This record gives sequence, C-alpha cells and structure tokens, in this order.
Amino acid sequence: MLRKTSIVGIGQLPVRRSYPNHLRELGARAVRLAMQDADVEEVDAIFVGNMLSDELQNQKHLGPLIAGEAGLTGVEALGVRAASASGAAALRMANLAVASGEADLAVAVGVEKMSEGVATPALAKALDSRKEVARGANMITRNADLMRLYLDRYSAPDDALVNFAVNAHRNAKHNPNALFRTMSASPRKVRNSRMIYDPIRLFDASPICDGAAAVVLAPREEARAYTSMPVHILASSVATDHFLVDDRPDPLALEASHLSSQKAFRIANVNREDVDFFEVHDAFSIMACLMLESVGFAEPGQGWRFAEEKKIWLKGEIPIATMGGLKARGHPIGATALYQAGEIVLQLTGRAGKNQVKNAEIGLLQSVGGPASTVITHIFGGD
Amino acid sequence: MLRKTSIVGIGQLPVRRSYPNHLRELGARAVRLAMQDADVEEVDAIFVGNMLSDELQNQKHLGPLIAGEAGLTGVEALGVRAASASGAAALRMANLAVASGEADLAVAVGVEKMSEGVATPALAKALDSRKEVARGANMITRNADLMRLYLDRYSAPDDALVNFAVNAHRNAKHNPNALFRTMSASPRKVRNSRMIYDPIRLFDASPICDGAAAVVLAPREEARAYTSMPVHILASSVATDHFLVDDRPDPLALEASHLSSQKAFRIANVNREDVDFFEVHDAFSIMACLMLESVGFAEPGQGWRFAEEKKIWLKGEIPIATMGGLKARGHPIGATALYQAGEIVLQLTGRAGKNQVKNAEIGLLQSVGGPASTVITHIFGGD
Repeated sequence: MLRKTSIVGIGQLPVRRSYPNHLRELGARAVRLAMQDADVEEVDAIFVGNMLSDELQNQKHLGPLIAGEAGLTGVEALGVRAASASGAAALRMANLAVASGEADLAVAVGVEKMSEGVATPALAKALDSRKEVARGANMITRNADLMRLYLDRYSAPDDALVNFAVNAHRNAKHNPNALFRTMSASPRKVRNSRMIYDPIRLFDASPICDGAAAVVLAPREEARAYTSMPVHILASSVATDHFLVDDRPDPLALEASHLSSQKAFRIANVNREDVDFFEVHDAFSIMACLMLESVGFAEPGQGWRFAEEKKIWLKGEIPIATMGGLKARGHPIGATALYQAGEIVLQLTGRAGKNQVKNAEIGLLQSVGGPASTVITHIFGGD
Repeated sequence: MLRKTSIVGIGQLPVRRSYPNHLRELGARAVRLAMQDADVEEVDAIFVGNMLSDELQNQKHLGPLIAGEAGLTGVEALGVRAASASGAAALRMANLAVASGEADLAVAVGVEKMSEGVATPALAKALDSRKEVARGANMITRNADLMRLYLDRYSAPDDALVNFAVNAHRNAKHNPNALFRTMSASPRKVRNSRMIYDPIRLFDASPICDGAAAVVLAPREEARAYTSMPVHILASSVATDHFLVDDRPDPLALEASHLSSQKAFRIANVNREDVDFFEVHDAFSIMACLMLESVGFAEPGQGWRFAEEKKIWLKGEIPIATMGGLKARGHPIGATALYQAGEIVLQLTGRAGKNQVKNAEIGLLQSVGGPASTVITHIFGGD
C-alpha cells in the first residue's frame, strides 16, 4: 500500500433475530455510529457489503440508498460483493480507496436483513446453479460434505467438532451485541442438538439474523486526529479457489485461505506466531476447524484436537471467535466481517471487557465467501 | 491518486441478442481478450461488474466463477455494483487497486446475460421497492416521467429527442461489436416507432442483450511495457443523489452527474472545453440529453437542440455515443461501461476507423446507476 491505513471508528448494531426497520435504516445507523465514534460529520466514500438484498428486499442499489438514509447524499457510495465474504470485500475496497489517496475518510459498512423472505435459496447462489444447486446442494449440504470427509479421513468421532460451538457461546455471553448472550452451550448440549443435515447439527451452524456494522478508515498518519486509539490495517489480501469444491485437489485444504493468509503475513511482515487471536469464519464448525489448519495454526487433521485442548479459548494458544463468532454473535452475512473488524478493534485497544485477550497486539481476520471459493484476509495491529 | 494508472489492454465480445454460452464464459472470454491485448498471462486482481446475475443466472459470486473460467484460479476477484453503472464501478475499483499499489495489473470486466429470464423486474430493483416499484414504477416509467417533465417544462415537441437515436444508430454501423450494425434509423423512423410508455418510443430505449467487455490497468510508469498505445486514466470519481427522484430539488438536474464530472475535471486538471468526445449513458434518450446539460455542454433545456444542430455527431462540437452508444451498440448492463472504456481507448489511439473523432485527445465517460442515483465519471487521455 502506498499509504498506510487505520480504523478510527467502529459501529455495531446488536445482532437480532429480527429488526422492524428497513435494511437501509440498519445500514445507515451503523454508518452513523461509526462516524460518531470517529467524531466526523462527513466522509469521502462508503462501500457497502451485502449478499442478499436482491432477493430479500428487492433492492440492488444499496450505495445511494444507504448513503442517503445516513444523510450523506452526494458522497461516493458503491456496493461490493464476495458472497458471504461481502463485508470483508467492502473493507478491502475502503482500504484501497484510502491507500490510493482517492479518499481521506472511507466507511466500510455491512448490512443484512435475513428476517425477511427466505434466505437459504438466496445463500445457495454462492454455489454453481447448474452443477450444484440444481442437483440439490446448498451451503448446508456443501459444508456437511466437507465435515463428513474430514471425520472420515481422520477417523475422528462424530462429535469431534463440538468445542467450536462451546467456545463461541462462552464468548458471546459477555458481548452486548451478540445474538446468543443468554444461551449456554455445554459439550453435551451441542452433541445432542438437532441434526440438520448429517453430520451437521444445529450447533454446528450459525443462525439466520439481522445486523449491520461499520468501520471508518483514515490514513495512518492522520489517525490520531480522529481517535486516541487507532488500529492499523497491516495487510489486506484476497484469494480465490476452484469454484467447485469437487475440482479442488484437496477439498479440505482451503487453498484460498492458505494463499491469502500467506500473502497477508508477507505484506504485514509478521509471522503466524505473532498473531494473538484469530477471528475465523465459523459459519459452520467445520469451516473454523479447516481454517485453523489452512492458516497453519494446527496440522491437517488436528484442528479438532486443537479445539478440544482449549487452545482456541480466550486464554489458549490462539483464541478464536473471541466475541462469540458467527455461531453465537450471529452471522448477518454481509455485515459479519465488519462486526469482526470492530471486535478486533476492541481487543487491540483493550476494550473487550471480560472477553479481553491478554496483551493482544496482532489480530487476524479471515472471511470466507461460499465454500471458501473466496477468502479475504486482514491483519490488524494496535498503535 | 498516489500512483497514476493506464489502460494497457481491452477486450470486447460483439454484443448480441443472445449467446448460447454461460455468463461465466462470456466474462472469462472478455478477460482473456483484454489480457491478450496487453500481452500478459497473469494479473493480480479482477473486479467484476454485473447487475442481474442474481436473478437471471442464480449466481451471486461471480469473482471466483469468472476468474476460474479464465484460468486464473487463485487470483483476487471481487464483485462491484452500482446498478446500471456496475461496469464503471468495477473500473473504479480496478483503478483504486492499481493506484494504491496493491495490484500492478488489474482487470475490470463487465458481463451481463439478459437473454435468460426476465430482465425488467430485476432492473427495477435499482429503484425503491416500496415507494416506487410497489406503486407500478420501473426503469422505463421513471425515464418516461423525466422525459415528460422535460418536454413540458421546455415546451419542446414530442419528437424533440429523436436525434439521439439517429446519431447512435449512424455510429453503430461501423462498430463490429455493435448489436445494431445493419439497422438504420431516420428521424422519421424514430419518430414513428412503437410507443412503449408515453412519451418513450422504442427508439428512445436501449435494447435487452448479452455482452462482456474488459480492460487491463497498469501503473502509468509501466504502461509502455505492455502496449505502445497506453491510454491514461486522468480522473475517476463517483457521486450519488437522493435515491428517490421525487426527493430531488430539480429532477432534471442530475446532480450526481454534475458533481462527479466537476470533481473529475478538477482531478484531471482539464476543462470541459478540452473534452473531445463524451460517451454518455443513453439507456434512454432523455438520459443522454440531461447528461449534456448536467455536465454543462448544453444549457438546461437546450440539450435536445444541441442534438438537433448535429453538435453530437462525430464531426460536431462534442460527439457522443461515438461507437453506437447504449442504444445501438447495445446495453448489456454491467458490461456497458467497459465497452465504453474500450471504445474510448480506440478513439484516443486513432483506431476507431470510420468512427474516428479527429484529433481526439481527451475522452469523457459517464455511467449512470438507476435514475442517476449514482453517476460515475472517468476522464481518459492519450499518451
């Protein structure tokens, strides 16, 4: 990047099963919250991450819709997408806008309102409509395929992944913006939860919900004009994989996660060992497990043991889903990565309360589009 | 921009009523054509402009879909959107990627396959679903409202705008990639064409069609490594307007067009008088007419006379739609701005054949999202 960038404001609406407000209002509220946090009245550009508004709200033009609702008519406002990684794509674009010098203040906002309409078929459009969806596949069955393959290949027990949900729900309890603040999840409860699509149980999947979150980016050298606690974007990278899981040499390798993380580490000039916590894309437990392996925190086939050994807990070797993750904070698709970015800011500025990771200096964020056809990595550092 | 950028390769598929190929193949072919033109085998990033694939192809994740089909699995690939200006949004993003130093070679590709499914209701999602579409509005009726208001306010005859279609069809004849290469359009023919929605007649509207186009961007200082005829991006800017036309102080003012063009002129350090030709967004004749006025080439209410006086012809004061425009080259929505960018490259490098604008040194491109809720301006200069 020719100009380094920092997050100087964050905004999050509590994730809920359903908001009565229109999508545009949720998005605009997150924008205004983040702008208030940065103490700015104007910005140069807004990048909107969203996946489902075409089907669920019949709206395809969210840039001016949200900009106008936020009282920012006139401003640059564009939509960005990468299926379930659309929020991270918006963050990437806002970062490019500031890094290029084309914007001095840019907002990345993510918003999703899944309580209207039927989300599952719209979500399945992240897959190949002819070769996958027409043959009965959707995002749940694709993740079930991966989980079954994993359990079989490594001769792991059917409940091998329970600790991902247990960890996420523990961490959500103290996050005021989490959907599942009051729901505890014991290993027993997770293990015995309703089977959705074998071997995926209810607690292996993230919930349908509404939410919106935003961050404000500024040039690093100007960050302290907006906040006493800037968080710096040390790297931002995107990689893709074969669109069809079946075309991949090893479906469990998550090559796009590997590639984009390796590139990000190089750009940020940090090692994996320097990472203090990792916000994973635990839309399904299997995805969190595979990401630990593709980034290299765990050996292939060892991700589930890594979790079992509590290495993913807040006091563990590499805490994940520190504020509840997609599973328990909630996964309002296009907004998710902006929630994660905000949570990373709270961790790196010592404001994560009971969920604080000790001495957190480097945070890693990976966002997954579809069955890891796209993976977007960001690395953040404290001041 | 901290690093200046240039177009070093272009690719266009001939616009057709219908291609038998899948959307992904059309997009990938345009990417490969542009890469061949730049003589490169690899790029760092691909930005995809598209508006309708959610509904018409049931695909929401075009980045990895098209990257993979183009043989570029692994590469960064993201979708960008601004309704009917989505192609220009992709160009803007590719430009930010190179300008920021995050990519050394970036492709902006636009693709749309409108021959599948029903485009009109999907196109209407550029409008407000509750306040406009639920009350019967679509993109045709919104443009009809603007045209009626224009004709009434300025006491112009009902056939005041015929010359926009006449000019476009004249210019399409010699563009091998135009949809309407063989269809001539006399003023009489345009005037008497079928009424679609009063006062819009068939020839006042652009056609439903399939197409894909792409450009390759590189840093300006490296452009000559790829081509002997680079074209430089002198400015890139985006502005929005009140989402609802009814909320605008003057619905005929196209404030987003005015704002983004003024900003672009300032960035490029050129005057309006320096512009040698103007690729307008003539999805409807009224839009071309209003854009001439909002950018300042014609006084308010005088755009139609400007056309009548042949000032928009190839040898006129400010040629528009020089290769046929949206009306006669065709308007495969998300691809359109990339066709226009390619046409501007041909003009600025003296390769526009019988459509060549004499001594063309500065080309202006404006792309319109929805009823000008978003307008994206690019200014290009020859080497």
